[in-house]
Amino acid sequence: MSQSDIGFKAALEEARKGADEGGVPIGACLVSADGKILGRGHNMRVQKNSPTIHAEISALENAGRLPASAYKDATMYTTLSPCDMCTGACILYKVRRVVLGENNTFVGGEAHLKERGVEVVNVRSEECEKLMTTFIKKHPEDWYEDIGEPSK
Amino acid sequence: MSQSDIGFKAALEEARKGADEGGVPIGACLVSADGKILGRGHNMRVQKNSPTIHAEISALENAGRLPASAYKDATMYTTLSPCDMCTGACILYKVRRVVLGENNTFVGGEAHLKERGVEVVNVRSEECEKLMTTFIKKHPEDWYEDIGEPSK
Ligand SMILES: [Ca+2]
Ligand SMILES: [Ca+2]
Ligand SMILES: [Zn+2]
Ligand SMILES: [Zn+2]
Repeated sequence: MSQSDIGFKAALEEARKGADEGGVPIGACLVSADGKILGRGHNMRVQKNSPTIHAEISALENAGRLPASAYKDATMYTTLSPCDMCTGACILYKVRRVVLGENNTFVGGEAHLKERGVEVVNVRSEECEKLMTTFIKKHPEDWYEDIGEPSK
Repeated sequence: MSQSDIGFKAALEEARKGADEGGVPIGACLVSADGKILGRGHNMRVQKNSPTIHAEISALENAGRLPASAYKDATMYTTLSPCDMCTGACILYKVRRVVLGENNTFVGGEAHLKERGVEVVNVRSEECEKLMTTFIKKHPEDWYEDIGEPSK
């Protein structure tokens, strides 16, 4: 698992799209056991006034309705450590692995994922971190709202 | 907390709507600390071909973008024990309490909610349970897909 995986590249492209749109710059991509992209998407808080369409939720939603077998041994790529909601979504659908771009700007449910048997890999992307630090500096109120925290 | 709370009544109305639409009959309603309905909704798997719009997600989405302060001491009413994704959503936004209609047909993340300091109340509604048993009997494939399990 590395920054050169197609799933990570797609997630990063999604995060860049989110940044271009003025949104929270987090992207995600769900990849099946046999390496196919099932769905990809990015955070839509700003673009759709949505408190629930985080990147991972967007990727799952765009993958559409699937039987449990389709998620078997799947990998969720995301540019940032997944929040508690997205952690829970990965556990619900029993993905095998979560590959995240960085966890310096935010640490989500990594410990809970591991407890529930999900592999967690951090590919430590400087670009993912830069997207977040730039956004948080410009729009702290949007960011803290996205993680359910009072604005600092 | 009881079946006569406005939040529980609204959640149950939502579940009935879902049943009338041929969908997974689960409803939810988010109520603020001062007793106002912030958002309500029902599961949209069948109606919108959505794997992510569970009842609680729908209620949060319909509540719209809110600052962290709006969720403070809020209660999420839901007609069924919340799955791992919806459990995570309640933890993300730091609701104080989850009131659920029943957990005989499915047990979700109740233990994790308690670990994270969220109060959990089961109001043991026969109607909630009947809605689920009727649906699961008629459409087992939709139900198992909704909880990420292979069809029995
Ligand atoms: Ca770094
Ligand atoms: Ca009963
Ligand atoms: Zn999230
Ligand atoms: Zn759910």
